[in-house]
Amino acid sequence: MSASTSRPSALIPLPSKEALLEAYNGLPLSALPTPALLLDRSIIRRNATRMAEIAASWDVPLRVHIKTHKTAEGTREMIQPTGKSGRVVVSTLAEAWGLLDAGLVKEGVVEDIIYGLPVSAARIPQLAELRSQVQKDNQKAQVRLLIDNESQIEALAAHDKGQAWSIMVKLDNGGGRAGLPADSPAFSNLLRLIAKTSSQVSLYGFYAHAGHSYDSRQPSEADAFLTSEVQAVIQAASIAQSIFPSASSSHLVLSVGSTPTAHAASRAPSSATLARVQQELPAHCELELHAGNYPFLDLQQLATRAMPNITGASQPSQMGDVTVSVLCSVISTYPGRGTEAGSTEAPPLGEALIDAGGIAFSKDRGPWGGFGHVVYPTELRGWQLGRPSQEHGILTLREGGPAQWEEQWTLGGAAKAREMPRMPDVGERVMIVPQHACMTLAAHPFYFIVDEQPGTTQAKPFEPRVVDIWVPWKGW
Amino acid sequence: MSASTSRPSALIPLPSKEALLEAYNGLPLSALPTPALLLDRSIIRRNATRMAEIAASWDVPLRVHIKTHKTAEGTREMIQPTGKSGRVVVSTLAEAWGLLDAGLVKEGVVEDIIYGLPVSAARIPQLAELRSQVQKDNQKAQVRLLIDNESQIEALAAHDKGQAWSIMVKLDNGGGRAGLPADSPAFSNLLRLIAKTSSQVSLYGFYAHAGHSYDSRQPSEADAFLTSEVQAVIQAASIAQSIFPSASSSHLVLSVGSTPTAHAASRAPSSATLARVQQELPAHCELELHAGNYPFLDLQQLATRAMPNITGASQPSQMGDVTVSVLCSVISTYPGRGTEAGSTEAPPLGEALIDAGGIAFSKDRGPWGGFGHVVYPTELRGWQLGRPSQEHGILTLREGGPAQWEEQWTLGGAAKAREMPRMPDVGERVMIVPQHACMTLAAHPFYFIVDEQPGTTQAKPFEPRVVDIWVPWKGW
Repeated sequence: MSASTSRPSALIPLPSKEALLEAYNGLPLSALPTPALLLDRSIIRRNATRMAEIAASWDVPLRVHIKTHKTAEGTREMIQPTGKSGRVVVSTLAEAWGLLDAGLVKEGVVEDIIYGLPVSAARIPQLAELRSQVQKDNQKAQVRLLIDNESQIEALAAHDKGQAWSIMVKLDNGGGRAGLPADSPAFSNLLRLIAKTSSQVSLYGFYAHAGHSYDSRQPSEADAFLTSEVQAVIQAASIAQSIFPSASSSHLVLSVGSTPTAHAASRAPSSATLARVQQELPAHCELELHAGNYPFLDLQQLATRAMPNITGASQPSQMGDVTVSVLCSVISTYPGRGTEAGSTEAPPLGEALIDAGGIAFSKDRGPWGGFGHVVYPTELRGWQLGRPSQEHGILTLREGGPAQWEEQWTLGGAAKAREMPRMPDVGERVMIVPQHACMTLAAHPFYFIVDEQPGTTQAKPFEPRVVDIWVPWKGW
Repeated sequence: MSASTSRPSALIPLPSKEALLEAYNGLPLSALPTPALLLDRSIIRRNATRMAEIAASWDVPLRVHIKTHKTAEGTREMIQPTGKSGRVVVSTLAEAWGLLDAGLVKEGVVEDIIYGLPVSAARIPQLAELRSQVQKDNQKAQVRLLIDNESQIEALAAHDKGQAWSIMVKLDNGGGRAGLPADSPAFSNLLRLIAKTSSQVSLYGFYAHAGHSYDSRQPSEADAFLTSEVQAVIQAASIAQSIFPSASSSHLVLSVGSTPTAHAASRAPSSATLARVQQELPAHCELELHAGNYPFLDLQQLATRAMPNITGASQPSQMGDVTVSVLCSVISTYPGRGTEAGSTEAPPLGEALIDAGGIAFSKDRGPWGGFGHVVYPTELRGWQLGRPSQEHGILTLREGGPAQWEEQWTLGGAAKAREMPRMPDVGERVMIVPQHACMTLAAHPFYFIVDEQPGTTQAKPFEPRVVDIWVPWKGW
């Protein structure tokens, strides 16, 4: 393998942030090319601050997953409100190299990187090169690997006899993604192998991610997922301490999270759950909260009814907390076509065509239907991306009516008498919130950043101006 | 708007084909980084030749849609077997500029470009710039626009008083995508406006795309879709000739297609349908066939049971006709987890983890379930990408059993006694055919090209070597 193929993402050039800013900085949304990916930095900061406060109220460190945005700027926004050197998770090696290239390790902004896929033999040389560069940039900085299979330990042991790898064992607490159940024989066998291989691997802790918490529909469910994650890591730590006594005196980090469950943690940080957790936590164990989607949110996240509000008011996240949207142009309308929402008797209002489809949004779905919901202009709320083709899509009226739509978005009782939306006009712009921020951001070569205080944009949604452009790290 | 923003895709740099070839050319699939997008040029050529023969058997020109691959190389492969100067459709301006940059217009390979989205006012300046460059490269070359709304004609008329725009009116023959029904008042009104605006727009013909033919499940259904497309364009042409008499003596192109319906055209090129079509075709009208996905195919296309075989044998397309796949690595296994296919009594075989997920495959679905089916190694046929996360995915066993799977893939009766697949091994590679080639190709920064005669790869599927790399045009 040549030098260049040891870092495949190096062959994928990024757009120049400087050239993009020269072209677009200061332009209002009404002047941008469409489709365009929009993020509001003021909302990102508010959401990131809230999550940092949640972690602080639990008195645990926050580890930020950067897979949703894959940018240096987004990483800084997530870490800054924690007031600490950053613990991060990456989902690709391209993201890890991006952090290095952006100087975040050298600056000390990022000091601890977990590579979020269980390690594979083929990637060990790349990971070794990455770790070497990370430690060159910052002696204290760490690269840690996730493990969920004995063969991965064997591959690490076979690779070289140098510096031991810091590893976390990934737990499956019911989601059926990566990981092992803490109560499985495979888990105990893996721990025994780790104990035998201690010159080459060093157990840092356990990692549980309730990805299936995205399926939860009310706060108590997300709360239960969090409890199951905490129980899983506590059980794992107890088993570890019984299997290799050295673990009982060494530090173990127990990392739990996912955006819905971390939000759930905010509901009762001083409740019986927290007290029980702290009481049950084995000696020498440190709890850590991890999450990634929370600065952005999306329709899937809203539908979890997770509760990000730490002020004490029991308010689930609402549409005003969501910042990711796709700016599109209406390029045709078909009055009278389609079916009327909520009625088979009324004549259909019609449908409309936009210049964005499955590529600009992804084909991800969610419990509320559609591939994205129109949020601006406000008179078009109730329209959804109903049928995406590859590069264009059909706007249709959502099923139900204004009362149901606003109840889902949690816009408050006052607005519930709102009327049905009007037809879109050819040539006008619409902002559409997608189902799944991670998938939609991945479809765009760069993101336009605005920085408006929430609420000021509602009346004239396309006047905010571009204040920055973020270029994500692509590939693997 | 600055010069650079008049061509937004110019700000998105492409990977260097030369650098990629230097890194990967000649490497076997077993040495490539994963996930990797694979295309087999020998299958592309066979499929492209077959479609060119279908069009020839109808005695109509073939217009190739390049949205699936968005590359210069793919465009050449589609046009070459037609033996003519190329008529193409693009879905983005980035694709059109890519054709120019690659010299395909100057060389005369591409001579006629339809911009495949109904035109919007905001894009007219970019389209004018594009047309000007196209005509600089080749005086005979044309850029044509799709129209389905009176406001688009008004926008074209308002833009400038220079050269008239060549337009096609897009018909909706039941799919509910872009376009107008030929029998609608809106359609007749649009034609009247076109007649009044003839100094600025010149009617080239009608365009009908049965995108909903992807929902068809047997040849007769795809055949019916084709008939409905032909009927729609013939009806449209008749109405046009009644509305403005000049059309009755001028040439009108009637473009029909989509991969399943174009394949359906192969079933009975000399049948009563064809005879009827030729008899019903109004004077001065030329039928044209268009399609785009056919060089590649995918699970959704196989499920349409469209019939690409022009040899006379009534064989639907089969897995051996599909060339797009994602090369992945198995990075963990979970023996005993999950549910056994086709049985609730047998203990589950297990599940496996691969290093590719929703981003590398897209979240598109299809009638056969899963987000992709494992095709190699052959002993793993029956596994699917069952639960994709963002950057990793869980392989699960498909529902049903070998007989049903092979009937779907049309692998012939002899193989039907095959046994259930084995468990994947950690570290081994798998090739997975996705649901929807267009969406999956869009997720990759470049494609690895192999060139094996079909059948030779089955025994040692990871020995073929990279012979080329195609870099697609991204953005809008």
